[in-house]
Amino acid sequence: MSTEKTTGLQLRSLISKDGQLELSLAKVEVPEPGPDQVVVKVEATPINPSDLGLLLGPADLSTLSASGSGESAKVTAKVPASSLPFLATRLGESMPVGNEGAGTVVKAGASDAAKALLGKTVSMVGGSMYAQYRLLNARDCQALPAGTTAAEGASWFVNPLTALGMTETMKREGHKALVHTAAASNLGQMLNKICNEDGIGLVNIVRSEEQVKLLKGIGAKHVVDSSKASFQDDLVQALVETGATIAFDAIGGGKLASQIITCMEIAINKTATTYNRYGSSVHKQVYIYGSLNTGPVELTRNYGMAWGVGGWLLTPFLQKIGRPDQLRLRERVVNNLKTTFASHYTKTISLPEALQADTLRAYAKRATGEKFLITPNKA
Amino acid sequence: MSTEKTTGLQLRSLISKDGQLELSLAKVEVPEPGPDQVVVKVEATPINPSDLGLLLGPADLSTLSASGSGESAKVTAKVPASSLPFLATRLGESMPVGNEGAGTVVKAGASDAAKALLGKTVSMVGGSMYAQYRLLNARDCQALPAGTTAAEGASWFVNPLTALGMTETMKREGHKALVHTAAASNLGQMLNKICNEDGIGLVNIVRSEEQVKLLKGIGAKHVVDSSKASFQDDLVQALVETGATIAFDAIGGGKLASQIITCMEIAINKTATTYNRYGSSVHKQVYIYGSLNTGPVELTRNYGMAWGVGGWLLTPFLQKIGRPDQLRLRERVVNNLKTTFASHYTKTISLPEALQADTLRAYAKRATGEKFLITPNKA
Repeated sequence: MSTEKTTGLQLRSLISKDGQLELSLAKVEVPEPGPDQVVVKVEATPINPSDLGLLLGPADLSTLSASGSGESAKVTAKVPASSLPFLATRLGESMPVGNEGAGTVVKAGASDAAKALLGKTVSMVGGSMYAQYRLLNARDCQALPAGTTAAEGASWFVNPLTALGMTETMKREGHKALVHTAAASNLGQMLNKICNEDGIGLVNIVRSEEQVKLLKGIGAKHVVDSSKASFQDDLVQALVETGATIAFDAIGGGKLASQIITCMEIAINKTATTYNRYGSSVHKQVYIYGSLNTGPVELTRNYGMAWGVGGWLLTPFLQKIGRPDQLRLRERVVNNLKTTFASHYTKTISLPEALQADTLRAYAKRATGEKFLITPNKA
Repeated sequence: MSTEKTTGLQLRSLISKDGQLELSLAKVEVPEPGPDQVVVKVEATPINPSDLGLLLGPADLSTLSASGSGESAKVTAKVPASSLPFLATRLGESMPVGNEGAGTVVKAGASDAAKALLGKTVSMVGGSMYAQYRLLNARDCQALPAGTTAAEGASWFVNPLTALGMTETMKREGHKALVHTAAASNLGQMLNKICNEDGIGLVNIVRSEEQVKLLKGIGAKHVVDSSKASFQDDLVQALVETGATIAFDAIGGGKLASQIITCMEIAINKTATTYNRYGSSVHKQVYIYGSLNTGPVELTRNYGMAWGVGGWLLTPFLQKIGRPDQLRLRERVVNNLKTTFASHYTKTISLPEALQADTLRAYAKRATGEKFLITPNKA
């Protein structure tokens, strides 16, 4: 084990008390690992929608200003004053970013679990991944199978476990099939593969004919296009065929969540035989897990009283299911990173490039099908 | 026991397949009671908001037309075509109405439970109460204490058990205090008395200074007026003081449900010490149990991911808690009908009067503080 100090760049996001967002690169010294810890040279770390919340906050990107280059790259933007009360506990704190990544273990603590990882390529979870080095607990690493690269293992956690979390939540809450929106995403493609493998009915909602073709091409059975005039009828039909009564919605704002519950109610009533004055007694649920549309959610309640809409987040879900079930899901992922859980990147960038104005605006768009990978140790 | 046939009037609501609502009075013969059944002469039955859904459906009351008088009274109105798909299972069916009531047991079946009720004044639940006589199971009756009248016992179920259901749900879902909207209602006044008796923190949201005074007058500790400019600050302050993280909302449409969650999040963050990128991890819940505003619910999600909004309904709640807990709550109600669970009526009407246009428009308004009682056996 090397005794030389490990230092490297780490991306930081700071919102000042007067509402200025500042992104920069800090040179940090990584502490030596404790007994159960390892130091990983981060070789690949993706930019997920879930990273953008911490990275950019509610900053107004029309006020974006970039300066410097290389280690001195810096970005600033204004955060609307109305958002500041919700950010009280992060104001003035320089925060590292990046939920997940993969790399090579270059130092390990004294425990067997830590030593077993030395020299291995591992996937990691735990934040602060937009950095050249990361100190973390051995239990937050998962060794990758021989032949799986860091780039292949970088997106092992957020999307794969979210997709698996959806089918697990569906089962635990007593539903037999599910609906997914913005379904042509990386995550959505994974979910189709999982549902096909596990024999689960899945209704995919997409926004273009091109996305219908993409999903049909990977074996999706039910794909409905919300841009078509027949959307509502098509959705009802798919809901009748699958019996789906739970949906996971990446969009959030607008009327889609409510439309889905309306169509579920119509589908249920197509087979109902008696009138219930409060609507069907079958519980209909939409979990909003993303905010592609950050505008208000509009619920037009023509579906009785047996319904719920709420936020869904991976971390509390994982806490609820406990460590043994977490490991079962993690192992399923790392053993299938080239197939079911493969991610595709449209662009690979360095840490300084992540702070260039054009690049930042591109990944901040959260466009379906576009995904950026940061390689912190490449120039 | 009389062997004479029992016949009487029964109010009926019919929506035809072509979208015509028709209310009328049918003369029906009440079957003889089975062993565990009784026949009750209905002396008092309230018009609750929860009855209006079945009575009027989504009919457009601007098209209301009334004709006839006495037993021949009849009302018609148009139901918008867009609502018909949601009513498929009731179209063409003449439906009796009225969730709850009280009266005198005039016939009883052979079982001990049924015979014990003969001649008694009882409260009842089970629908079809807008009638002169009602056949029902002894278990759906609750004998009233000596000295409690049918008028005092008529509203024993819907409001009292809904109010008790709120504090029970609060406890079962792990919250320590609650919020209630349209809080000056009959139900809201009961809820204040329950919370004061049980030492539960309650934040009342009302819409006028007059309603603030009314609730303060009956001992309410936290009352906030949504018509004041300081509403949001006042609500946050009350939420900090009580720690309420669950709300029961009678209004439904509009922005109030979302505002409540926003204020809960601000209240929670006032005591938080670390930043959570997804908002506080404390689950914030709003249950919508009424629809004083039938318009869309608008959710502006500035409160992270730990939130839920959904329908709440008494019947599934009672099914979930089971018969022993139901009886515990029922007994608490009938023993306190003159105090905690007292209802106040602004008007008492006969069955034919319920089908007069002006009267119907008055009770269909669902105005806070106004409540109608039907006395089916008075002319």
